[in-house]
Amino acid sequence: MENTEHTMAHHTGPLAGYQAKHFLWSVSDDGKVATITLNRPERKNPLTFDSYAELRDLFRSLNYASDIKTVVVTGSGGNFCSGGDVHEIIGPLTKMGMPQLLEFTRMTGDLVKAMRNCPQPIVAAVDGVCAGAGAILAMASDLRLGSPETRTAFLFARVGLAGCDMGACAILPRIIGQGRAAELFYTGRAMSADEGLAWGFFNALHPSEQVLEAAQTLAGRIAAGPTFAHGMTKKAMHQEWSMGVDEAIEAEAQAQAICMQTQDFRRAYEAFVAKQKPVFEGD
Amino acid sequence: MENTEHTMAHHTGPLAGYQAKHFLWSVSDDGKVATITLNRPERKNPLTFDSYAELRDLFRSLNYASDIKTVVVTGSGGNFCSGGDVHEIIGPLTKMGMPQLLEFTRMTGDLVKAMRNCPQPIVAAVDGVCAGAGAILAMASDLRLGSPETRTAFLFARVGLAGCDMGACAILPRIIGQGRAAELFYTGRAMSADEGLAWGFFNALHPSEQVLEAAQTLAGRIAAGPTFAHGMTKKAMHQEWSMGVDEAIEAEAQAQAICMQTQDFRRAYEAFVAKQKPVFEGD
Amino acid sequence: MENTEHTMAHHTGPLAGYQAKHFLWSVSDDGKVATITLNRPERKNPLTFDSYAELRDLFRSLNYASDIKTVVVTGSGGNFCSGGDVHEIIGPLTKMGMPQLLEFTRMTGDLVKAMRNCPQPIVAAVDGVCAGAGAILAMASDLRLGSPETRTAFLFARVGLAGCDMGACAILPRIIGQGRAAELFYTGRAMSADEGLAWGFFNALHPSEQVLEAAQTLAGRIAAGPTFAHGMTKKAMHQEWSMGVDEAIEAEAQAQAICMQTQDFRRAYEAFVAKQKPVFEGD
Repeated sequence: MENTEHTMAHHTGPLAGYQAKHFLWSVSDDGKVATITLNRPERKNPLTFDSYAELRDLFRSLNYASDIKTVVVTGSGGNFCSGGDVHEIIGPLTKMGMPQLLEFTRMTGDLVKAMRNCPQPIVAAVDGVCAGAGAILAMASDLRLGSPETRTAFLFARVGLAGCDMGACAILPRIIGQGRAAELFYTGRAMSADEGLAWGFFNALHPSEQVLEAAQTLAGRIAAGPTFAHGMTKKAMHQEWSMGVDEAIEAEAQAQAICMQTQDFRRAYEAFVAKQKPVFEGD
Repeated sequence: MENTEHTMAHHTGPLAGYQAKHFLWSVSDDGKVATITLNRPERKNPLTFDSYAELRDLFRSLNYASDIKTVVVTGSGGNFCSGGDVHEIIGPLTKMGMPQLLEFTRMTGDLVKAMRNCPQPIVAAVDGVCAGAGAILAMASDLRLGSPETRTAFLFARVGLAGCDMGACAILPRIIGQGRAAELFYTGRAMSADEGLAWGFFNALHPSEQVLEAAQTLAGRIAAGPTFAHGMTKKAMHQEWSMGVDEAIEAEAQAQAICMQTQDFRRAYEAFVAKQKPVFEGD
Repeated sequence: MENTEHTMAHHTGPLAGYQAKHFLWSVSDDGKVATITLNRPERKNPLTFDSYAELRDLFRSLNYASDIKTVVVTGSGGNFCSGGDVHEIIGPLTKMGMPQLLEFTRMTGDLVKAMRNCPQPIVAAVDGVCAGAGAILAMASDLRLGSPETRTAFLFARVGLAGCDMGACAILPRIIGQGRAAELFYTGRAMSADEGLAWGFFNALHPSEQVLEAAQTLAGRIAAGPTFAHGMTKKAMHQEWSMGVDEAIEAEAQAQAICMQTQDFRRAYEAFVAKQKPVFEGD
């Protein structure tokens, strides 16, 4: 039985049997690719206090769920996410004092921190409305696939707020450039799908009805790679964000030396010599 | 009368009745959008020691001119700015000792610092020649509109100098990417309008005769937004320039919590509930 | 004779008479533009322990070779570089302990550090295969010219390793954006020439048979500029990588004041006044 348990490790990780309360959670047959689906389609999948908190906790747990290799984030019903619910979040916020407000903004920020700190590459599958905190969720992912119908709006200005929400003023400029990010923040206007592709926000566009499948396929391909090394890549991109070049190079010398002691590195070499395709196992 | 003074606050700020000496200064009828026009069209609007100093002092004053919400920078006569005047600036510089030289480069750098530290988003309306310190003025703005005739040249190499002028080696790569910025610095060649648009330097191109109006319209639209929050957005993009991701997220949690206590946030919520368009007042 | 030696300074620098062992080394007739050609065309110019070390030492020597003004890096036989040799590097690495591994990753990192720290702008002339450490060599250059046939692959994931190799996770996102860099790292897929141009990795594309000549022409043009100032530009882009904006502006005030005391700055001014083209001498 122990052997079976080992083989089925993805059924015994910290997220084994996880039942999401405020969104949908599913795992691919091989246990490697998890999909989070925001699922209040009649309202275009807004976030609530509860769903924020559960997403934060989930991404924190993913840090230890070594059986899960990549994560897809999407929304149901042809939209990604409309952001913080006007009635369930924005209304209450207008009545809070500072300690409660800061508790809220730190909770939402902690979600982005958790997304950036878990080792799994995250692929956002974006269709239709992608607005406010929804745009942040896409931005905080590692890769983004969109559809021609996607409209991505960092619309905080339109609700009386600043663009500096959940790390956007730091992260978005590094994806699409300072000038474009500034325009989106100050005007609150939607970025079209074509702009998002040309500017490097989206890695590719797929028809609406295919974008989720494309994201899962891409996530599966990445999950079939050297996933321990992927986690080091993600950590490096995070750690080196504000390092000098020389310091980043030393950090990478250490990180890559660690990866060179993995079995996956040996597997790749042996497969190459045998003129075969390597089968990576993430260790 | 006190009430009238309050309503007309934009006539009583630190820049009320300001008369510019070395360029044109005008304020829109509602007092919210200021326009700076470099105005030596026969020489393509070069800068002089005096105009540098006055621009620096003006942008420093804007830090306290809470009645002015956005600033447009432009040039007269179909050109933006040809940079430091060869006869009035470059000639004298070739004869100065180090203390004087450093005094000059710090003065020009202080202009960029003042542009980045004032709370007003700055929109550059660029036509024709945009060269040297002129290209820096455009770069140091938050948003940039150009015309098809615009030629933007970081031409310092052509006058025997380095690309590291007034922050260019730090700022330009974050707008258009390291590789493109390096080419412009080392060759001194002009970036065409189409390149500027494709690379994210320009937010949009408009016909020459319309670019100023387009910039003022855009500035007006931004001025009609939550301008206190805009100031926080601008500050965040500045502050987080070299922060780590996690630190930037915490900084934004605090900054956005502050914005959630503004009246503009409440106004937006109440307008939404009433199915109306919010009217922001910047507080 | 002393006078002749001075005129022929490029024949007396630390690299005078340099004979490369593991690649080709040539210097233009005027002594200003050096070309490094990786030259194992039957294997698509892979790197070995020896060629890494010699490249590192060469770029360190270039720091003191003030006679050489720009460097072109290319490969022979229609390919740039296939990266670390599978048999001569990857095989041995799979058998090493940590101290040896770290010695290797630090050596390769030191090559990038040396390329970023020498004052000469480096132009990569890239054709065909540009993979693994080859892609890093192109990335670590200041400017990049490609051909339509160029395929650039940060393929570390395909050999079981992480994208954080030789500074890639810090440098590549600043050239092409975080989202695109992440895709290349996690999938290991090749970036096409057209993508490389649109994303800002390549400065321009030229037909295969012309890309080296185009790179040498560009390098020659840059070498004819104010090369002391170029070195300051390169240093500034390096130094300011993780500085705040205000600190970068002060750094540039100092750096540009230094450049204003060069003869090249005076030469440019005098040429302008005399309506002539300046002849820069790099001092």
